[in-house]
Amino acid sequence: MSSSLLGLSLLAGQTGATGGTVFHAVNPTTGENLAPDFHEASLAEVNSALNAAAAAFEIYRAVPAETRARLLDTIAAEIEALGDALLQRAHAETGLPLPRLTGERARTCGQLRLFAAVVREGSWVDARIDTALPDRQPLPRPDLRRMLIALGPVVVFGSSNFPFAFSVAGGDTASALAAGCPVVVKAHRAHAGTAELVGHAVVRAVAACGLPAGLFSLVHGGGSTVGIAMVKHPAVTAVGFTGSHAAGRALCDAAASRPHPIPVFAEMSSLNPVFLLPGALRDRGPAIATGLCGSFTLGVGQFCTKPGLVFALRGADTSAFLEKLSAAVQGAACATMLTPGIRSAFLENRAAVTGLAGVTLLAAASAAPDAKKTEAQPSVAVTTAQNFLAHPALATEAFGPFTLVVTAETAAELTACARALEGQLTATLHGNTDDLASAAPLVALLEQKAGRLVLNAFPTGVEVSPAMNHGGPSPAASDTRFTSVGTAALLRFARPICYQSFPAALLPAALQDANPLGLMRLVDGQRTTAAR
Amino acid sequence: MSSSLLGLSLLAGQTGATGGTVFHAVNPTTGENLAPDFHEASLAEVNSALNAAAAAFEIYRAVPAETRARLLDTIAAEIEALGDALLQRAHAETGLPLPRLTGERARTCGQLRLFAAVVREGSWVDARIDTALPDRQPLPRPDLRRMLIALGPVVVFGSSNFPFAFSVAGGDTASALAAGCPVVVKAHRAHAGTAELVGHAVVRAVAACGLPAGLFSLVHGGGSTVGIAMVKHPAVTAVGFTGSHAAGRALCDAAASRPHPIPVFAEMSSLNPVFLLPGALRDRGPAIATGLCGSFTLGVGQFCTKPGLVFALRGADTSAFLEKLSAAVQGAACATMLTPGIRSAFLENRAAVTGLAGVTLLAAASAAPDAKKTEAQPSVAVTTAQNFLAHPALATEAFGPFTLVVTAETAAELTACARALEGQLTATLHGNTDDLASAAPLVALLEQKAGRLVLNAFPTGVEVSPAMNHGGPSPAASDTRFTSVGTAALLRFARPICYQSFPAALLPAALQDANPLGLMRLVDGQRTTAAR
Repeated sequence: MSSSLLGLSLLAGQTGATGGTVFHAVNPTTGENLAPDFHEASLAEVNSALNAAAAAFEIYRAVPAETRARLLDTIAAEIEALGDALLQRAHAETGLPLPRLTGERARTCGQLRLFAAVVREGSWVDARIDTALPDRQPLPRPDLRRMLIALGPVVVFGSSNFPFAFSVAGGDTASALAAGCPVVVKAHRAHAGTAELVGHAVVRAVAACGLPAGLFSLVHGGGSTVGIAMVKHPAVTAVGFTGSHAAGRALCDAAASRPHPIPVFAEMSSLNPVFLLPGALRDRGPAIATGLCGSFTLGVGQFCTKPGLVFALRGADTSAFLEKLSAAVQGAACATMLTPGIRSAFLENRAAVTGLAGVTLLAAASAAPDAKKTEAQPSVAVTTAQNFLAHPALATEAFGPFTLVVTAETAAELTACARALEGQLTATLHGNTDDLASAAPLVALLEQKAGRLVLNAFPTGVEVSPAMNHGGPSPAASDTRFTSVGTAALLRFARPICYQSFPAALLPAALQDANPLGLMRLVDGQRTTAAR
Repeated sequence: MSSSLLGLSLLAGQTGATGGTVFHAVNPTTGENLAPDFHEASLAEVNSALNAAAAAFEIYRAVPAETRARLLDTIAAEIEALGDALLQRAHAETGLPLPRLTGERARTCGQLRLFAAVVREGSWVDARIDTALPDRQPLPRPDLRRMLIALGPVVVFGSSNFPFAFSVAGGDTASALAAGCPVVVKAHRAHAGTAELVGHAVVRAVAACGLPAGLFSLVHGGGSTVGIAMVKHPAVTAVGFTGSHAAGRALCDAAASRPHPIPVFAEMSSLNPVFLLPGALRDRGPAIATGLCGSFTLGVGQFCTKPGLVFALRGADTSAFLEKLSAAVQGAACATMLTPGIRSAFLENRAAVTGLAGVTLLAAASAAPDAKKTEAQPSVAVTTAQNFLAHPALATEAFGPFTLVVTAETAAELTACARALEGQLTATLHGNTDDLASAAPLVALLEQKAGRLVLNAFPTGVEVSPAMNHGGPSPAASDTRFTSVGTAALLRFARPICYQSFPAALLPAALQDANPLGLMRLVDGQRTTAAR
């Protein structure tokens, strides 16, 4: 299958030109360049793709929900039809193990089908009808009907760490297409071949559904210049991004400085603090140690929900926990990171933390990492709460298999640490029944810091479901009012519109008296699926 | 009552200091300064109010919905208890007639009570429960529960044109308090006394409900320095604003440049285009002319939904319509604008439009405006679609009693005009049955331009109800995904949070199995009010 890769952008159903700067994907396990050459798209090509998206929007925004659902289902089927070749290419480009990639593919296709189901059911448009009150005094009330409609073309930046689930046909793309928005993806260079394979699958699905080719484009681009140009293009109405804080912030700033600013949904950085309460450590400290080691080394620590900070009260149970954690980390395997650049950043950020006074390396994997295999060595460091509170730099995210345990002398110190935290995707609490009986104040504090609170489990593993929230206060995400995972993610790409005194023939089906789509609606303040 | 005015900021229940720069409200009808002196708050005072709001948030975010509802009801009652003194002061400060102010007060109190009802009912939190699937393969699903929670302290900038409904206890404040957020209002200088009276009413209500005084502050401030400082204060999590595009954009830029950017809901500028289709002009051209004149001169044209652009096809019916419109405008009264500054801006912006080549003044009120009474003269100008398309400056908002009629030669020209429009709060269509049979393409175009589409009526008059949408694509509003009027306005000040594997005792009532609040919830993908 890799022989069928073109190394070209896919621009509204057409392949891009050769002739741009050429780059290669690299196998991080071997360091070798992977065929083929990839050609960066020109700015003119990018602009043409975005203009095609704007034209496609005028058609796609008005197709029935069933058409959008069928597109999402078809994309899932086309991705599955790529078979093992897709997994092999992704494995070669990312170093991620095949079982993980197999699971991520299933999650990605399941995500597409879940959004299809949400679109088919249809109530996400939050239809509201206020019927006319012609005799009301002092003024009559007109008939008012409101629903959510698609925002417009969306630019998606593929992430490095999820080559399927947060990439070309990942959550951002699926939710944008579900909401009724065309998508132009900027492929991540590190898995350009995986991106192209999935891109072809989407292109085939768009064609199979008889939809305009401009509905989807995939751009191979060079760094921030093309990215910023995409964000600044007048046709673009929203941006989805998963990656570093610096890159996300640059996109946010570009979007905010447009003549007409647009929202950027950037999911950026998070330390995912874990609070270990005394009873939990007493009852099951060893199990927590094993679980924590598994969680912070999962995927070589390359999850946005990796627990990177752990807080506990000093004491015998904590000491025993740390001993068990040390042993677990010593036994953990070194493993290949996604790219040499990510490995370098990991080493640099970890050194920024471990190099500070008062930080002690507690343990590292006993095996030595092989730089030629882009390997990282799991490790854990410890410091005190006083030191943590004195040095904000200790809250630096080291994206990789590292976590910092912070020991507090008192519960008040623990609370002070919680209060000092910046915005997080998740915050986790381990506590037994006694701990939890007095945990409400800590929970209240963490509610203000994080998008998801986890009890007696670990934050890695993000369910794709209606109740998931994957987001959080800045800097974890750029817009804490929205999630990037779960069915609510499509609310990012929609906006309300109100129709006043419109006849049924000019109203969307969602707002017609007969309720032909059978939606749950708010009619004169009452939620109902009935016609009116 | 005006003798009881202090001229001081209300900072977390305490009056601000004297000694800052002093200013007066001015009676625009007479030009006279109104007592008392108002003292601008210092930056230190502003910061203390915002810090008090942050402290109050930790209490207020956790009070039962009933407490929030009672606060809103109490504010309404306290405003009503101010009696005629409030109306008299507002009349003196704004020049708006007493009947209008009486209606606006009723709307404002009704708005507070409507949000109270929404909070009492409670389903706005969009509670979602995905129950645990411990036996799922390949991985179990944890119990996940998601709802909306309050964002944090909100800064509200009072508008000039609605001294009650978009000011101290207007829609922004009511929706923020409803969502669970403390509010710090920057009073509009032009009606500082009205603001202070309403501010005292809110302070009394906060105290009567036993809530922390920091929940509400009212700042008398000097121009943009204080405003920008408020937006940049680290405790602030969102901003509500209604006013000019330049001021709104400055606030948006300040918010976007923070270390942790926050959302600004700025409702800024809109021309509210009206499309008059041929059948409608033939059937009821004179009635439309009368209605249009009434709409664009209502409130001296000082509504954000004032129709400032009117499009029609050239022809005999349009000529007759224009004759009728001329007569109506000639008979319209000159009236006092809110402030001399608003009047100057109106004259300047109107001149920018009427001074362009190809624009003809069609008619003006036959009475002469009295500058000493800050009066504006209703007027209407005409131009061609070709001229409109050639000169984007013709789409300049003149906030006041002026509208521009654009005549097109062909339906294609009309469509081109629609396509050339920037984002709008509203777009209006007048058409008879024949017109509407072929209006779908125009409607589809206007859906992409406006937040509310009005059929065979006029856009002035914004209902406060569940289905209202008052917002629209940039530059009409800074965030087209939200409304600033209607019950959905409180969604601006909330964010989702997810609880994973939490026991009932640590869950908010909205997410407990028993559904003690009786909310409509999404449980395992099904909408239900049942317990589980």
